Amino acid sequence: MANWERETRMDYESKGFAVSSGFGKKPALLVVDFIIGFTDSSTPLGGDFSSQLAVTARLQTAFRKSGLPIVYTTVEYKEDLSDGGVFVKKIPSLGILRKGSPNCAVDERIRPLPGELVISKNYASSFFGTDLDSYLRGQNVDTLVITGCTTSGCVRASAVDSLQYAYHTIVVRDGVGDRAEGPHEANLFDIDAKYGDVISGDEVLNYLRGSAESGFSSGTREDFEAWWNEGRKAPA
Amino acid sequence: MANWERETRMDYESKGFAVSSGFGKKPALLVVDFIIGFTDSSTPLGGDFSSQLAVTARLQTAFRKSGLPIVYTTVEYKEDLSDGGVFVKKIPSLGILRKGSPNCAVDERIRPLPGELVISKNYASSFFGTDLDSYLRGQNVDTLVITGCTTSGCVRASAVDSLQYAYHTIVVRDGVGDRAEGPHEANLFDIDAKYGDVISGDEVLNYLRGSAESGFSSGTREDFEAWWNEGRKAPA
Amino acid sequence: MANWERETRMDYESKGFAVSSGFGKKPALLVVDFIIGFTDSSTPLGGDFSSQLAVTARLQTAFRKSGLPIVYTTVEYKEDLSDGGVFVKKIPSLGILRKGSPNCAVDERIRPLPGELVISKNYASSFFGTDLDSYLRGQNVDTLVITGCTTSGCVRASAVDSLQYAYHTIVVRDGVGDRAEGPHEANLFDIDAKYGDVISGDEVLNYLRGSAESGFSSGTREDFEAWWNEGRKAPA
Amino acid sequence: MANWERETRMDYESKGFAVSSGFGKKPALLVVDFIIGFTDSSTPLGGDFSSQLAVTARLQTAFRKSGLPIVYTTVEYKEDLSDGGVFVKKIPSLGILRKGSPNCAVDERIRPLPGELVISKNYASSFFGTDLDSYLRGQNVDTLVITGCTTSGCVRASAVDSLQYAYHTIVVRDGVGDRAEGPHEANLFDIDAKYGDVISGDEVLNYLRGSAESGFSSGTREDFEAWWNEGRKAPA
Repeated sequence: MANWERETRMDYESKGFAVSSGFGKKPALLVVDFIIGFTDSSTPLGGDFSSQLAVTARLQTAFRKSGLPIVYTTVEYKEDLSDGGVFVKKIPSLGILRKGSPNCAVDERIRPLPGELVISKNYASSFFGTDLDSYLRGQNVDTLVITGCTTSGCVRASAVDSLQYAYHTIVVRDGVGDRAEGPHEANLFDIDAKYGDVISGDEVLNYLRGSAESGFSSGTREDFEAWWNEGRKAPA
Repeated sequence: MANWERETRMDYESKGFAVSSGFGKKPALLVVDFIIGFTDSSTPLGGDFSSQLAVTARLQTAFRKSGLPIVYTTVEYKEDLSDGGVFVKKIPSLGILRKGSPNCAVDERIRPLPGELVISKNYASSFFGTDLDSYLRGQNVDTLVITGCTTSGCVRASAVDSLQYAYHTIVVRDGVGDRAEGPHEANLFDIDAKYGDVISGDEVLNYLRGSAESGFSSGTREDFEAWWNEGRKAPA
Repeated sequence: MANWERETRMDYESKGFAVSSGFGKKPALLVVDFIIGFTDSSTPLGGDFSSQLAVTARLQTAFRKSGLPIVYTTVEYKEDLSDGGVFVKKIPSLGILRKGSPNCAVDERIRPLPGELVISKNYASSFFGTDLDSYLRGQNVDTLVITGCTTSGCVRASAVDSLQYAYHTIVVRDGVGDRAEGPHEANLFDIDAKYGDVISGDEVLNYLRGSAESGFSSGTREDFEAWWNEGRKAPA
Repeated sequence: MANWERETRMDYESKGFAVSSGFGKKPALLVVDFIIGFTDSSTPLGGDFSSQLAVTARLQTAFRKSGLPIVYTTVEYKEDLSDGGVFVKKIPSLGILRKGSPNCAVDERIRPLPGELVISKNYASSFFGTDLDSYLRGQNVDTLVITGCTTSGCVRASAVDSLQYAYHTIVVRDGVGDRAEGPHEANLFDIDAKYGDVISGDEVLNYLRGSAESGFSSGTREDFEAWWNEGRKAPA
């Protein structure tokens, strides 16, 4: 934690910031940009997000067993980058994300099931120019649990829009990652102060287990409990 | 500058981030939330932004003399805060911004002229739920020069949307402010790396002076030059 | 009814169009552009909407007695019309709707109460460039009951967006009006076929009376019943 | 033409409606929903749009030879229709448009080239929940020429949004079609009165030929002229 954080946080709390906004009634899991171009540390955009992917995989299983929606995002541009606007000018290395490139595929460690939505976007926010909000509303989702990368980029932008689009917003501290620790911490700080609650993956799992309102059918609850009691492992 | 910034910046630059996206053809000035509730340091939301207001006042004069649009934002809620969604739950002190309160008025030091647009918003981004984009497009604006507060809040959110809405985005380093230095610097770092160019107010003034494409009529150019040669003062 | 309507409607119904989408759980009333510029038939934009205003006034009372939100829209442009884009080029008579003009005021017959939201818009859809959706979501509204004018203009555009923004959409046949009968009927036909249910004001009143889910408190129910039994009059 | 149209039109014109808004500086061609599900008259959603497809094919060639962008839309839903919201409830036959179905493919007669954008949407407007606007802005497009189907559905909704998103809007009278003549004519009437200019495909071709500003390179101009002089045929 940067040395300014503790003091600023105390100042914020004394002034009516950073109150918990909590969960609503029905959460969905949003997995932001865990695609090869970002999760393979040999690419210019990439980093090592192994532990964050492991946390995401556990949450993925828990959401599936709870019958709750999961949405993944990817970034894809046309061959001529004509759909990248000023963004590809500012960050030319985005050019490795051409439609059809393996870089645009969701990481195998959290492979989407058929029927789970994978949204293609061109910009930072998962909401911008996509049907994410429309889909979530159709599912009566009012809470978004966010993992992915990077904290200072697409995660932050998606979290701000998540609040603006009226979702209770939860960012999973150990499920989001960045290329460097400084921006990671600074952005979690801002998010927790102003846009959503920053909590651990285990806290989300506990919420799912405890919630009577989170859409468990009696069938899936037993299934969920069994998985829980066996140690909450992601599937091999 | 936090100790992580230099190293991370070098890493970014080596990997194709943080290239300058520059100015387009016609800039507008966006003054974010320089309203009493934020500029009076005695309120729970407020800070001392005197120097940033002075920089903004100079830019305001330069944009007026150049015949270029200026837009101001304010934040206003209904008496019952029913238009504040999860945001007013997360930051209860936003409650001082009830419609009609003096806190919602633009600071006198940069008072809008009749005919300049003041946009009321409820959330962080100046674009969310407002006609900002629509207005700017109608004016053929393709570049947004941003001042205001706070860097880590509404300025950052507006800068991200500015890029997403296809504007060349310029954030004025000495024209934006925050309650604390840590979030201020960390957010300027992210913005400059990914969303827009972070430059000084003087650099913007120089651009305006030098630009043949920035909408000067022959009349206003002389007026602008006179003001420039007299020391670029904001009006008394 | 134009002679093509019956036949086309039968064709539609045989092919899986025009199914009722009904009410959701919590309706709001949206009163589109019942402002002097449109309701005073002496203006170039105006027509005689007395009967539609009377229907709207009854619904207004019923929604108030039910504790359900009401939103009004108006259209307002800057003095130089710079916020009117191509729209004011296509329909120059929109120029009578300058901010501050009496033409922009909601008609006295359905005067908003303090605390009821009046949204200013520049275009046809009540959702475009406004915080309408944001406000409704904050109130957990999932159904929009629409009255106002004109059927072929802002009512149609708002009804299409209402569906797109995930609201159950109800257009009140005798609460919406147009300058001419042809466009009025043709647009109600399209709306009922594709976007929402077109029903009478009395059907909406019956729904409100019968609904156990529409947000009545025990207090307001008695009040509502009394008003109902006294003949459903709008207040003098 | 329905008998109300002439009279209403005269009334409109006398009152400052229906002025031509014309072309801007750079047009794109938007081909709305000319997919098998709509162009094969044996489906419940379909009709015979052969002549409109032929007009579109000629425009397609002209836009390609002019180096101007072309965008196509399709409608696609998830297997469980969970991304169709209230729309698939109102029009259950939309269920034939499951992702992967041949019904969702653009008609062979106007097959997109690799590199031309095909946008997938879930609702009526081509702008809703898509990156259409973002893409067009990145190309500096300010004018949208619209063909496709149906006039009373997705064409109308897209034309209204086209105006709202600040585009000069041109709807090609003989390039758009509907299942029935009544709604077709009534919607062209509304569009021409309020949202955009309704002109013929030949008028668009003449504009492209005559325009010095429409993006012709010297190379493509000769190519365009040759094609023009050979009879403006779509390729075999």
